[in-house]
Amino acid sequence: MKLLIINPNISASVTSLIGEESQRIASPSTEITMMTAELGVAYIETRFEAMIGAYATAELAARHAAQHDAIIVAAFGDPGLAALREVLDIPVLGLTESALMSACMLGQRFSIIAISRRISAWYRETVQTNGLLDRLASIRTLDQRVQNIGSIQNDHAEELKALCMQAIEQDGADVLIIAGAPLAGLARTIAADIPVPLVDGVSSAVRHAESLFALGTHAPRLGSFAHPPIKPNKGLSPAIQNILNPQA
Amino acid sequence: MKLLIINPNISASVTSLIGEESQRIASPSTEITMMTAELGVAYIETRFEAMIGAYATAELAARHAAQHDAIIVAAFGDPGLAALREVLDIPVLGLTESALMSACMLGQRFSIIAISRRISAWYRETVQTNGLLDRLASIRTLDQRVQNIGSIQNDHAEELKALCMQAIEQDGADVLIIAGAPLAGLARTIAADIPVPLVDGVSSAVRHAESLFALGTHAPRLGSFAHPPIKPNKGLSPAIQNILNPQA
Amino acid sequence: MKLLIINPNISASVTSLIGEESQRIASPSTEITMMTAELGVAYIETRFEAMIGAYATAELAARHAAQHDAIIVAAFGDPGLAALREVLDIPVLGLTESALMSACMLGQRFSIIAISRRISAWYRETVQTNGLLDRLASIRTLDQRVQNIGSIQNDHAEELKALCMQAIEQDGADVLIIAGAPLAGLARTIAADIPVPLVDGVSSAVRHAESLFALGTHAPRLGSFAHPPIKPNKGLSPAIQNILNPQA
Amino acid sequence: MKLLIINPNISASVTSLIGEESQRIASPSTEITMMTAELGVAYIETRFEAMIGAYATAELAARHAAQHDAIIVAAFGDPGLAALREVLDIPVLGLTESALMSACMLGQRFSIIAISRRISAWYRETVQTNGLLDRLASIRTLDQRVQNIGSIQNDHAEELKALCMQAIEQDGADVLIIAGAPLAGLARTIAADIPVPLVDGVSSAVRHAESLFALGTHAPRLGSFAHPPIKPNKGLSPAIQNILNPQA
Amino acid sequence: MKLLIINPNISASVTSLIGEESQRIASPSTEITMMTAELGVAYIETRFEAMIGAYATAELAARHAAQHDAIIVAAFGDPGLAALREVLDIPVLGLTESALMSACMLGQRFSIIAISRRISAWYRETVQTNGLLDRLASIRTLDQRVQNIGSIQNDHAEELKALCMQAIEQDGADVLIIAGAPLAGLARTIAADIPVPLVDGVSSAVRHAESLFALGTHAPRLGSFAHPPIKPNKGLSPAIQNILNPQA
Amino acid sequence: MKLLIINPNISASVTSLIGEESQRIASPSTEITMMTAELGVAYIETRFEAMIGAYATAELAARHAAQHDAIIVAAFGDPGLAALREVLDIPVLGLTESALMSACMLGQRFSIIAISRRISAWYRETVQTNGLLDRLASIRTLDQRVQNIGSIQNDHAEELKALCMQAIEQDGADVLIIAGAPLAGLARTIAADIPVPLVDGVSSAVRHAESLFALGTHAPRLGSFAHPPIKPNKGLSPAIQNILNPQA
Repeated sequence: MKLLIINPNISASVTSLIGEESQRIASPSTEITMMTAELGVAYIETRFEAMIGAYATAELAARHAAQHDAIIVAAFGDPGLAALREVLDIPVLGLTESALMSACMLGQRFSIIAISRRISAWYRETVQTNGLLDRLASIRTLDQRVQNIGSIQNDHAEELKALCMQAIEQDGADVLIIAGAPLAGLARTIAADIPVPLVDGVSSAVRHAESLFALGTHAPRLGSFAHPPIKPNKGLSPAIQNILNPQA
Repeated sequence: MKLLIINPNISASVTSLIGEESQRIASPSTEITMMTAELGVAYIETRFEAMIGAYATAELAARHAAQHDAIIVAAFGDPGLAALREVLDIPVLGLTESALMSACMLGQRFSIIAISRRISAWYRETVQTNGLLDRLASIRTLDQRVQNIGSIQNDHAEELKALCMQAIEQDGADVLIIAGAPLAGLARTIAADIPVPLVDGVSSAVRHAESLFALGTHAPRLGSFAHPPIKPNKGLSPAIQNILNPQA
Repeated sequence: MKLLIINPNISASVTSLIGEESQRIASPSTEITMMTAELGVAYIETRFEAMIGAYATAELAARHAAQHDAIIVAAFGDPGLAALREVLDIPVLGLTESALMSACMLGQRFSIIAISRRISAWYRETVQTNGLLDRLASIRTLDQRVQNIGSIQNDHAEELKALCMQAIEQDGADVLIIAGAPLAGLARTIAADIPVPLVDGVSSAVRHAESLFALGTHAPRLGSFAHPPIKPNKGLSPAIQNILNPQA
Repeated sequence: MKLLIINPNISASVTSLIGEESQRIASPSTEITMMTAELGVAYIETRFEAMIGAYATAELAARHAAQHDAIIVAAFGDPGLAALREVLDIPVLGLTESALMSACMLGQRFSIIAISRRISAWYRETVQTNGLLDRLASIRTLDQRVQNIGSIQNDHAEELKALCMQAIEQDGADVLIIAGAPLAGLARTIAADIPVPLVDGVSSAVRHAESLFALGTHAPRLGSFAHPPIKPNKGLSPAIQNILNPQA
Repeated sequence: MKLLIINPNISASVTSLIGEESQRIASPSTEITMMTAELGVAYIETRFEAMIGAYATAELAARHAAQHDAIIVAAFGDPGLAALREVLDIPVLGLTESALMSACMLGQRFSIIAISRRISAWYRETVQTNGLLDRLASIRTLDQRVQNIGSIQNDHAEELKALCMQAIEQDGADVLIIAGAPLAGLARTIAADIPVPLVDGVSSAVRHAESLFALGTHAPRLGSFAHPPIKPNKGLSPAIQNILNPQA
Repeated sequence: MKLLIINPNISASVTSLIGEESQRIASPSTEITMMTAELGVAYIETRFEAMIGAYATAELAARHAAQHDAIIVAAFGDPGLAALREVLDIPVLGLTESALMSACMLGQRFSIIAISRRISAWYRETVQTNGLLDRLASIRTLDQRVQNIGSIQNDHAEELKALCMQAIEQDGADVLIIAGAPLAGLARTIAADIPVPLVDGVSSAVRHAESLFALGTHAPRLGSFAHPPIKPNKGLSPAIQNILNPQA
């Protein structure tokens, strides 16, 4: 299958990190294309940044969906995920949703370990959108401003492990989600030190994308994820015009 | 006060309708500026369309916020509302949120009367984002495809009244929200025929905007609605760059 | 408009405090009448005291509603608010509900800062009645018994500010509600020191009363806030008899 | 034990009905005293009427609690129940709460069968106050205005049975609560015709009152049901003054 | 009445403890039979152990139900409670459910005090099954591995009292449930030292069993607790075969 | 990978059906072993039957887990799923949970289409255990008693399709779960006729089992899914003894 992974942030280094982690888990027959948002911010922590990221992702998805079998929106918080599902007729996955689905099959309550305090409100709202707030034991985050998004895993490894142990021992987590594309792969490298299963959004999303493709469901023609009704539009890019009005 | 009302749809006729209803309720000292999205669709019914509308609204808000005291995002569903609150230091209001706040002060449970079946999932999710799903008695909608967004109030007056009565008698609504900018003013024109209070999003938003301005709270410097951390960005319009990085 | 503000407590000094704060925010055309409960306790902290306060408020409201355009029940916890809405055909508002509505338009999650530990259960239940428990980040309260209800703002200013900061930094509040009529005005005086918006119940209620009056909805003739069915009664004051059985 | 049962309505005929049903289920050693509210309405259907009923019940409870071992507030909706628990040091029970507790031990989801449409909002709120809304399958009610509260069981027996069957077959109820003091005893008389357990509030309350008395817990000295802090009061009856300020 | 109390654990000493506490509270006319699971573990702390305990309890219940008027499943967590209700036509009660029902009539929010950290997830899920998670203030537990299940009350009396005080003062509990059959009777022995009501599962269950028997409801013939449809089975004990297929 | 699929029912024909559907979706490298419960009933519809099925599944799982890489509990309702997760150190999956996870990635709200009215309460409780009740649009079921569990798909194809359309059009489902092992494969055969994605529990579980195996998380050593503490046991099969006390 042809899998398109779009980083809604503009950080090419994070795109590389996601790409490596994706290749590691993907089935041999899965061909991965990585893309980086052409507009937006270095890493999304807030609702406004997510809104921009959603728009940037939509543009890339609209341009390239026809050549792929599934798309992953590769920022935790899943910017634009539900929106894209309405207009594309291939599976669209997000890192948070995918990680939550994996976590739910590994335990009852989960915590999220994240890179900045600021990001936690947005993550909490994403869990709520997924309807899973009752299973969220906690969100624990690094406390300081992110200095270097590329080296955050190495710079803060011990603090991140300490957050993991607090989530287990104080918050009652059965399983931990290591959140945010910049932490892709961390779940794997620290797994041996942490006494509960660790879930990684990127590898979960790649596996679940392969599964949805294999399960082979068709796009909805009714319900709230059917294609939006055709109607006048204005000022949109050709690609977005085209997915809104395919007949045109 | 100077109030900017942005229609996230591209329909100038709907902008006019919103403008008239706004003028009718506004205090004499409130000076209203109406704007219409420069890009987007004729009327927003889905998550994807709302995402586009949020982006279009953000551009206008970013350009013009400095000259205003409050902004109303004038589409039911409140596209981009929470996002805009993070980057602007004036009050930002939405039609749904404003209508919900009015409704909560007039009864315990409310129903929403809307223009199309398709729109109801998006409205339901907006109520859920507001945390008020337990007070939602029902969403009742016209059944057919919208033909003419400009004349929908007249074309379907009797059906809309019938939906109102069903919401009261069958669903237990204490108060009704007439939803969607194309129905602006309908609450006023049919009020005498409906035996519970009717809430209109536009007039609610104008009044609540005046109230928030009068209450005079300052913008947050901490918490999840403080300004996003300054960080590299790319590909954004000058106005959006400027609100993301005001020092620059 | 003629606005009646009833203090459900017997403390005339608190009535004065509420009156001053109300005058400060009210529109020039709003004429405010202040009344103090003729029976009850010095300040309501519990469900039993609230029940007494509701009854005392009902008596005053029944006597004076006909000469007013809206009524504010001016104790946090909103004693008798929903009850009064059933029998009066003008808007009735409460401090908690009004503060919650303002807070919801300024952030996603709010904390309540209050004057006594004992009062927090009652406040929590009021938030739950409003259906907004999921958005309540915390209730933080002074720890000691209230000594002097009149001077509590001055006596405990630093502790109250510290509670505010804890709610923001530890509980994730986006906005703070300064609760309880004895703290009326505190939100204004400490606003500059607190990095998130502060909401005051009294000024919110005055503004929202003006808005509901301006929106001009009529009283319900159906639904759970329509007037109670006429039926035999006994032992009630003339005023309450009259609102229960207006034809008599 | 000495059990005081207070009818918060002024209808002596309903008090008799409650008394008969109570005697039927009470243990031989339980001595029952029946009292009827000295002020209020013929039967409580609304929040305002419940507020009046709570006040009337409080007066009787305050006067007579010292001579009893437990008190039942004998109107569905439990007017003043939580309030009374704060000031009395004997168990206080309500019909709704007691019926809910019985129902929860007989099935997972329950429906409530009630005498008037108007009453259903108040009942729903009572279930919500008990935190049991998720287990409420439905509330089904007679449709017309109550004509004769004393003969309602006979006048509407067949309709009430039909409501029972609808709740089972259409709403998924495992157990039914026959609600409202005017229906006391109906659960017993129609049980043979209804294929799920029927719960009666009055007999449940009498049994649970005996249980709480037997379990012998003491009144709280801390927490939100401890006695309210002693403070100035005014305009209250001697009995209520006495329970608010026992040392005086 | 003839009451069968089944200990789903294999610990005869705990059965004795339960038996003593049951006799102390039971009415003179209640004849109690105690039984201990014939298979299982020393004390249930986990979902797997509960599943085994449910099966062991079902076997004893199936064998002996016909000779009894009610059955108590005497392990906190209520293993198999809902399952047994489907196949037996006498009341079946559990310690957790019974304690929750008592607690709900004594306060609004309750905490659970338990013997091991490990047990708290299972208890939390039991409260959730009862639909009462919103009223759960906290679960507080002893921290160390249980050494001697028989002497745990004496070995840890002071720690247990400290947990009680923390639940009241830090978590906002109005009432405390002392959980787990090995703590049967502790509520009684430490009641004088704890300033809120303490609820014991065993004595609550005995009283509520007597009440359900007295209320005399019949077994359901419809709804989700009616007897399972008759169908082929295999490999089951004669007793279980018999309750599944009574005609056979 | 070696995948063990256990049918908790005793119906070998259903085991075959599950096996066929599993083979169809499984990766070439997945080696599937099918087993049928040695004790239990023909098909599980109730809590008691599920409890028996859980026990029967546990016995087979305990015997054979060591030779496999993952286990699927192949009855909708997931009997014993959480219990088995505690004692096995390989992934354990269930049909309901797996179907829910697939459905959540294909839409926001889902309905369940099932084979008998009686089964719906158990399914609803399973969704609730998964914390996803807010996303459940409805459960729609065939109305009559199941006659022939083996041919149910053919006997009722038209009715099942009609239920699908009702769930979409009347209940607002975005995606449908075809529930119950006896309906395995139906999602595939009717997909072309139904305008929203259809989810099948068996194929979802096989794919998710492969994913969890590929993700390679280790078994928890802490938290509520760690192995139960070692303690005395009695009367258990050698296999179950062995998984409870692996050192023995």
